[in-house]
Amino acid sequence: MRRVGIIGAGMTNFGEHWEEGFRDLVVDAGLKALTDAGISGDRIDAGYIGTMASGSLIGQEHIGGLLADYMGLNPIPITRVEGACASGSLALRQGFMAVASGMHDIVVVGGVEKMTDLSVNAVSDILGGAGDQEWELFLGATFPGIYALMARRHMQEFGTTEEMLASAAVKNHYNGARNKYAQFQRELTMEQVLTSKMIADPLKILDCSPITDGAAGIVLAPMDMAESFTKKPIEIIASAQASDTIALHSRQTLTGLKAAEIAAKTAYKMANLSPKDINLAEVHDCFTIAEIIAIEDLGFFPKGEGGPASLEGKTKLDGEIPINTSGGLKACGHPVGATGVKQAVEITWQLRGIAEGRQIKDANIGLSHNVGGSGATAVVHIYKA
Amino acid sequence: MRRVGIIGAGMTNFGEHWEEGFRDLVVDAGLKALTDAGISGDRIDAGYIGTMASGSLIGQEHIGGLLADYMGLNPIPITRVEGACASGSLALRQGFMAVASGMHDIVVVGGVEKMTDLSVNAVSDILGGAGDQEWELFLGATFPGIYALMARRHMQEFGTTEEMLASAAVKNHYNGARNKYAQFQRELTMEQVLTSKMIADPLKILDCSPITDGAAGIVLAPMDMAESFTKKPIEIIASAQASDTIALHSRQTLTGLKAAEIAAKTAYKMANLSPKDINLAEVHDCFTIAEIIAIEDLGFFPKGEGGPASLEGKTKLDGEIPINTSGGLKACGHPVGATGVKQAVEITWQLRGIAEGRQIKDANIGLSHNVGGSGATAVVHIYKA
Repeated sequence: MRRVGIIGAGMTNFGEHWEEGFRDLVVDAGLKALTDAGISGDRIDAGYIGTMASGSLIGQEHIGGLLADYMGLNPIPITRVEGACASGSLALRQGFMAVASGMHDIVVVGGVEKMTDLSVNAVSDILGGAGDQEWELFLGATFPGIYALMARRHMQEFGTTEEMLASAAVKNHYNGARNKYAQFQRELTMEQVLTSKMIADPLKILDCSPITDGAAGIVLAPMDMAESFTKKPIEIIASAQASDTIALHSRQTLTGLKAAEIAAKTAYKMANLSPKDINLAEVHDCFTIAEIIAIEDLGFFPKGEGGPASLEGKTKLDGEIPINTSGGLKACGHPVGATGVKQAVEITWQLRGIAEGRQIKDANIGLSHNVGGSGATAVVHIYKA
Repeated sequence: MRRVGIIGAGMTNFGEHWEEGFRDLVVDAGLKALTDAGISGDRIDAGYIGTMASGSLIGQEHIGGLLADYMGLNPIPITRVEGACASGSLALRQGFMAVASGMHDIVVVGGVEKMTDLSVNAVSDILGGAGDQEWELFLGATFPGIYALMARRHMQEFGTTEEMLASAAVKNHYNGARNKYAQFQRELTMEQVLTSKMIADPLKILDCSPITDGAAGIVLAPMDMAESFTKKPIEIIASAQASDTIALHSRQTLTGLKAAEIAAKTAYKMANLSPKDINLAEVHDCFTIAEIIAIEDLGFFPKGEGGPASLEGKTKLDGEIPINTSGGLKACGHPVGATGVKQAVEITWQLRGIAEGRQIKDANIGLSHNVGGSGATAVVHIYKA
């Protein structure tokens, strides 16, 4: 396989884009990524786009064809990839393979979701499609409810507290307040999180990521071509994906995501690295408990010690392993299909040293962790400056 | 890139499966493909699944995660790919790249759609997502209407007649009557087609492919491993994809699909072959006019001569280039996301010499042509015995 690098990255602001459509968002992010790479559309050989539920959210499928057209990229092939909330990382992974295989040289990868044009109830029903609709959601479970079950079990087994969960939200809002692309650019106090409205005990509204519009884009090239485009290509040194049962009730454990553990192990092996080699990570904090579980699944902290580590500040910007410098899904926002690509954008900026206001010192190796639904799909990428 | 071969193929019956769900269909097709390959699930390294509109049709997204679970394949990665009616071929193409790149060895590829549980009107609205919803379908265009525009223009420019269109349906029903997996296993007369109910002038109901449930599966392996599984692996010697504008009104021509022409040229170049080297083809006859256009776009007949060629029987089982030996979308049925994979299954059976009742003599090279929507995506694969 050929070595693959990121030569361009860009994203829209994340938030409520009531005056822009799905197409506008992707074109905006795509052009930013191309501009960043200093490349014009006629150099692009293929594309991948991650989006979860455009069919239900805006009535439009065939997103690859649509975007080839609206990006002015006809006749190059663009392919849509879907894996619920992990759709963006799956698109990145297909782009990685297309370049690694030698099938294509310059590949653009995008992620997008336009979610705020429907009611919150309608969007929640649609997002239920990320879980086992027939055996979970149609029977009354909700996604906050599913993650609340994980939280309660984690609390029972390891003594994780509501304060520990809340500390992830407080930290992510602190980071988001330093990211001009974030949906929520304001800090939160521990008390605000703990006293916010209960959604699914023990998760409060401020433990949950929001509904968001947004898009992000990345341009990939073989490493031996990458340096002709940019002085600092970011190499993707590992791409791994794993699966688990789609319904929570079939899992062997509720306190970890087996798919994430396996994807992480596979990725570390591919990169010939261990968790202690990672300088920063973007992880899938759809709920605060998800971040606590993620930092354990990724091997940054032993099982059961994610909560105390978060409360003690070990995952802050100046902590031993900074997590979600972008603000994460919680504060940067979670336009579902865009999230995985946004994670790659943030890591790229950090490894280039241009993450203004939230830059990590000596960042050379970054990791992204993106989860579909409650963990039936997990994708881990490792990046090197 | 490594050479890639098909070592197993299988499909469900196509038709109205009121007593089976989406999950049952995929598991059925997947197990048939694995059984055909003589392989157990623990040998599979990864999977791809093509489905267009599961979110809208059955409320379920995250199809990769779902199927890894229901196929008993956890924790291997399975990824959903979508490109409207070309979703199946896009899944095959991603599987091809995953093996070609060296990322994975044994890869299962599936296609599925469960369509008959909703009303015809609801399904038609959902299928509109294959076109430009905002600028075509939401404004009143229908898919039969869009293809009728192509038909009328083809008739005006080249003198194509309604009989020529109908001849494709008559031929495909003849073939379908010889395929035990086909939705319609009965022959039609020219008169039956010509006097059937008008849908969008000049297309009648018997010029249109039906709404169908079904699934199909393929198992891929590197050619240097393939012979340890089967005496006759079918090599995929070309995989090409191209795009065009999503809306018909932006096209340079209505009488050909530019994306299909480009994908075909790319595929012939990759295989170092020309149209005259192809022994048989499965093409995307969502409407009869689509088959006439396809056999021209693929270079089997000069522009404008597809209609007369069809009427003269040149595309029949014993003609100079047999087209849609399976019965095509018209008679075999069109479970949208499954169609591209079904085409690969039919070509595999023909190249192995086991297409009972409809076997082509001396079939060594086959081609499949799969189109998304009205032509914004086209995918061409070439296969060698």
